[in-house]
Amino acid sequence: MAKANLFYAQSGGVTSVINASACGVIETARLNNDRIGKIYAGRNGIIGALREELIDTGKESAGTIAALRHTPAGAFGSCRYKLKSIEDNRSEYERLLEVFKAHNIRYFLYNGGGDSQDTANKVAQFSIQQGFPIQCIGVPKTVDNDLPLTDNCPGFGSVAKYVAVSIREAGLDVASMCESSTKVFVMEVMGRHAGWIAGAAGLAAEQEGDAPHIILFPEIAFDQKKFLKKVQECVKQFGYCAIVVSEGAQNKDGSFLADAGGKDAFGHVQLGGVAPFVAEMIKKETGYKYHWAVSDYLQRAARHIASATDVEQAYAMGQAAVEFALAGKNAVMPTIVRKPGKKYSWSVGEAKLSDVANVEKTMPRDFITADGFGITPAARAYFAPLIQGEDYPPYKDGLPQYARLKKVLAVQKLKPWKG
Amino acid sequence: MAKANLFYAQSGGVTSVINASACGVIETARLNNDRIGKIYAGRNGIIGALREELIDTGKESAGTIAALRHTPAGAFGSCRYKLKSIEDNRSEYERLLEVFKAHNIRYFLYNGGGDSQDTANKVAQFSIQQGFPIQCIGVPKTVDNDLPLTDNCPGFGSVAKYVAVSIREAGLDVASMCESSTKVFVMEVMGRHAGWIAGAAGLAAEQEGDAPHIILFPEIAFDQKKFLKKVQECVKQFGYCAIVVSEGAQNKDGSFLADAGGKDAFGHVQLGGVAPFVAEMIKKETGYKYHWAVSDYLQRAARHIASATDVEQAYAMGQAAVEFALAGKNAVMPTIVRKPGKKYSWSVGEAKLSDVANVEKTMPRDFITADGFGITPAARAYFAPLIQGEDYPPYKDGLPQYARLKKVLAVQKLKPWKG
Repeated sequence: MAKANLFYAQSGGVTSVINASACGVIETARLNNDRIGKIYAGRNGIIGALREELIDTGKESAGTIAALRHTPAGAFGSCRYKLKSIEDNRSEYERLLEVFKAHNIRYFLYNGGGDSQDTANKVAQFSIQQGFPIQCIGVPKTVDNDLPLTDNCPGFGSVAKYVAVSIREAGLDVASMCESSTKVFVMEVMGRHAGWIAGAAGLAAEQEGDAPHIILFPEIAFDQKKFLKKVQECVKQFGYCAIVVSEGAQNKDGSFLADAGGKDAFGHVQLGGVAPFVAEMIKKETGYKYHWAVSDYLQRAARHIASATDVEQAYAMGQAAVEFALAGKNAVMPTIVRKPGKKYSWSVGEAKLSDVANVEKTMPRDFITADGFGITPAARAYFAPLIQGEDYPPYKDGLPQYARLKKVLAVQKLKPWKG
Repeated sequence: MAKANLFYAQSGGVTSVINASACGVIETARLNNDRIGKIYAGRNGIIGALREELIDTGKESAGTIAALRHTPAGAFGSCRYKLKSIEDNRSEYERLLEVFKAHNIRYFLYNGGGDSQDTANKVAQFSIQQGFPIQCIGVPKTVDNDLPLTDNCPGFGSVAKYVAVSIREAGLDVASMCESSTKVFVMEVMGRHAGWIAGAAGLAAEQEGDAPHIILFPEIAFDQKKFLKKVQECVKQFGYCAIVVSEGAQNKDGSFLADAGGKDAFGHVQLGGVAPFVAEMIKKETGYKYHWAVSDYLQRAARHIASATDVEQAYAMGQAAVEFALAGKNAVMPTIVRKPGKKYSWSVGEAKLSDVANVEKTMPRDFITADGFGITPAARAYFAPLIQGEDYPPYKDGLPQYARLKKVLAVQKLKPWKG
């Protein structure tokens, strides 16, 4: 079988370990240079394929590729760009195939969440119909941890570690000051429709009274009266109240507590600012002095405090995706399978893209305490292994040293895309 | 000379290394148990002295005290409580002396910023007038780095490292996504009247195009037109614009860009929310999609990413304060003196509390670029050594392990304080 080229693209919101998956893909593909020729990466994700902007990763040194393992964000660029259905925009799929053909690309590895796996699945089907079959393999990625069929999702463990560390540290700060100053601290975390990140922050509390005292999950309809009562109880009992609120926290009618108004390219509402909203609500009703934090991108970019488990799994998913491709698989995605037993261990599994696409996995109800404000022992048992281990990047002059890529584009062979 | 007891208190906003100073105080005092008897710490700072709530640190193990070195926030509790002038509230000073007398306290070590050093200075004077002289020694502390007479201030180096690491990481995130999504990222940092923290974030930018692209300092009056022009230039040139804004950023008339309204016990305006304010302004004028972050307490509590230099200096200040006390000094504070030479080195100096009190040191104009949006090589040379080195806390189950104190109070000898 003649050599074919590989195209890898990063999609959607980036994470602190998506480049570790890229590293796994590129290093594994390089090891198999008898079967894989060029390894291209999309400049700014799938847009790079449409525009025929293919970064030739062969121009990057082994050292630079290795450094991707400890470099946050999307080194090749990612995008929020969802291909429409084939019926609605056949020309996009035709263009993709045209570019893949022109560059002899037979492997398409798409590193993203549910939306992206949906796209990869469609490309697989379409390419077969068109007689130029592309092996499409998903590489799971999302800080939200909301992909089905995988025990957890690369990107999640590190943001989980970041939020748990952060609320532990900020909780100590508030505890120091609460006698005469701030009594309520509200930290907003990501998680549009699933409370996984908010829940993981609960790991910080090991003893009664530890922060966080209250978690607001998207899965539990917000009940203001009950919430304010709980805040007051905490302040009375512990002197302060540390709250973690998911950006996706919702009212009974399904509306977000704080809706910033805008929508992104996927049609998702742009969220932000629920922390100040909740803090103000508490101030108004109780008079407590508050502080709030919104770490936003800081949490998902925080490679400096990444989970070693997460880094390892992210790399393994990239590696497995290449191995799947070489094994002739198509329209599948490697998954993380938790093995039974007290000591945490995991292996690589496999899921069909058609089963992954556009399904959101929310927190099981039995991971949330009966009152809706905390996590159960079952949740702790699930979360705890995912934040294990530290995987510090190298530092120079006091700052982490992240990979800088050359990003040399392959010579273009086609006319510009009029998308 | 008979043994006397020591009283240590934490004051004002806490930092990720104020407990390292506490560790330096207690360990050094324990080594000198021929001259120092009990080592008390104020429960919630100076309030603990007024209420006769004296934590007997002798009840804490050597291991627990050693762990203070890597524990953020104020382990004994801090407070925002400023003693008035002696004329306005003589009874507070009398009460302090009464408590000190009752517990044979002759050493008062006050770990705080300018306000606190003012208090310590007044206590020193008053105690002499009253014939029960207390040696009052300041221990410098403030994330704001605005104390005079010391090259830098413990607490600052670590928050500087946190903000530089954070904007580097978040900048990579935005760079990955800017082609199709967020183009502007605004990160708010602390620094009420001085731009030291905001300026330190500038260390993250090593090459042209690196984040942050714009820094808004309290020292430079905000010029909306010039600012928006610069934002647009950045987006055109680099594809995105990463902005660091100090919470103390001001308009020409001296008003804060975003004023949350409340005031704290020192009469300072409670700030917060300038990041969303700036982000909204940009959106309105340019249409750019934005994200913003306010890390608030996270930045000053982030012991997980503390500067090793800062930790070492914080410890040394605590140690030196005890040594000053034992040397018979009074109304002074140890300082950090930068030695000349290319390689960074420092020694312990000394300043009079009367010279430190209530003086705010702002960024020199020549640390800020001519356009007012960046830092100069002189600023880099100043900041760079302060974030050097990593001093990771120990981890267990994926989370940093911070000291838990017993906080046993000394038996009270006086009637309750009616403050």
